[in-house]
Amino acid sequence: MTDTVVSSETREVVIGFERPFVLIGERINPTGRRLLAEEMKRGDFSRVEQDAMAQVGAGAQMLDVNAGIPLADEPALLAKAVELVQSLTDVPLSVDSSIVAALEAGLSVYKGKALVNSVTGEEERLEQVLPLVAKHGAAVVAISNDETGISEDPDVRFDVAKKIVSRAADHHIPASDVVVDPLVMPIGAMGTAGRQVFHLIRRLRDELGVNTTCGASNISFGLPNRAGINAAFLSMAMAAGMTSAITNPLESEIRQAILASDVLNGHDPNCVTWIRTYREPPAAGEEGRRRENRRRRG
Amino acid sequence: MTDTVVSSETREVVIGFERPFVLIGERINPTGRRLLAEEMKRGDFSRVEQDAMAQVGAGAQMLDVNAGIPLADEPALLAKAVELVQSLTDVPLSVDSSIVAALEAGLSVYKGKALVNSVTGEEERLEQVLPLVAKHGAAVVAISNDETGISEDPDVRFDVAKKIVSRAADHHIPASDVVVDPLVMPIGAMGTAGRQVFHLIRRLRDELGVNTTCGASNISFGLPNRAGINAAFLSMAMAAGMTSAITNPLESEIRQAILASDVLNGHDPNCVTWIRTYREPPAAGEEGRRRENRRRRG
Repeated sequence: MTDTVVSSETREVVIGFERPFVLIGERINPTGRRLLAEEMKRGDFSRVEQDAMAQVGAGAQMLDVNAGIPLADEPALLAKAVELVQSLTDVPLSVDSSIVAALEAGLSVYKGKALVNSVTGEEERLEQVLPLVAKHGAAVVAISNDETGISEDPDVRFDVAKKIVSRAADHHIPASDVVVDPLVMPIGAMGTAGRQVFHLIRRLRDELGVNTTCGASNISFGLPNRAGINAAFLSMAMAAGMTSAITNPLESEIRQAILASDVLNGHDPNCVTWIRTYREPPAAGEEGRRRENRRRRG
Repeated sequence: MTDTVVSSETREVVIGFERPFVLIGERINPTGRRLLAEEMKRGDFSRVEQDAMAQVGAGAQMLDVNAGIPLADEPALLAKAVELVQSLTDVPLSVDSSIVAALEAGLSVYKGKALVNSVTGEEERLEQVLPLVAKHGAAVVAISNDETGISEDPDVRFDVAKKIVSRAADHHIPASDVVVDPLVMPIGAMGTAGRQVFHLIRRLRDELGVNTTCGASNISFGLPNRAGINAAFLSMAMAAGMTSAITNPLESEIRQAILASDVLNGHDPNCVTWIRTYREPPAAGEEGRRRENRRRRG
């Protein structure tokens, strides 16, 4: 039973073994979104605003915020995006950059306890990112690769995760504040990618006792009907014990798979969220008939 | 690694741990289908024909055939339905009845090695159904309840399954010819139904070494958006090791969840089936352009 608590100024979200799955909205990320990148670079954050509100409206419990734009002042952009998103919504954020100065800038304006995305098992990253996480009292995503790259052996990836958890402890960051990303490979390129990651998620939960997250849509890279693969992947990963994912809540199949798997894992008591989300509103005529029936009975 | 081989006169289908999931079409069953029941009772099997062809067309590798109609001559109807369906398609059948005389009539006309649906752990059923299965060299679905009913404890259900496998062995029916149905309860009524059945499927596979099947749609009884729950359930059950299900291939979300989970379990090498099923046909204009490009390059 591990709980990772993150927060904004006014709202707490808990990622945990016996909790509803936490969907971290992935959309505020200029990687591969040329238009968004150009707009952010020239200071136009209107699309960031729209993406924030749309994802929260679609059920994201957290939002990932990334400002990785080549040749831009990423620390300034990330800080601005974090401040803007926090002014619009109270969901906690994942502050996302591969540049340590940008993480620092984002964290310096962040209100609450952020999730830092991310640290790897590379020595230099460990030494730069973990002190920052500790200083800000944040939680951190730990990606299970190191200087040797991404191993195809899930047990080697487990050992990298274990090393990061141990190094985090040296900085007084508890294991409950380390959320491991087991790394999802494209199943179209590597047929064992699914079974590997399910095995790894189970070990991370049972042996290391940590929460897990991942960029789920990587699994379907290069295949047709990606939403179908992504949805089944999320259900199977949740069956193995995955507790959060950075993904797109605006894709109805993804959101549906997550909510249904919460029901099946026993994490949606009395199916309240499921029924509220999917119950059909009564047709106008039917509602009329019901009212009529009530009147007659009354 | 357990393989259950069933067959028609000309085609073999294998249910197995390292095989693509076997979808057994559920539609030829008059239970809850008043129109079909009335038609079959008066000898009109046109809807049975349509259901057979539609389900095979939608990817069912086997078909369940049931003729359970109150006050009808079920043995005669089941034999007729089995003969008819075998004249139309070469997929192997699951011969389905709760009446032993009907199972006997269906098996007496069946060509190939059928799946008998089903035997329970009740003493009387064991003594009536297992000799019939042995006599016809068939495989059998074993439902994990007995005289005491359906236990809410999955470990008690495991023990019932173990007893059936042992009793089958007394009749020289190998464990590989026993496909256990762990019994799926409605999650809306019992919040632990999902976790129970996943736990049981895993034990049946790892400890008893048997293939598994279930009536998957029972899980979503009483809930809105049943297809969404059913799809996630199938993916999670397949993650736990379930190897077949009696379900509806005409529901696109169910078929998609099964094919995607085969991909993720590594049972669709190079994603051949997935790509063939879901690749978008090139638009007319695009195809024209491609041809044009080939011509220019050529």
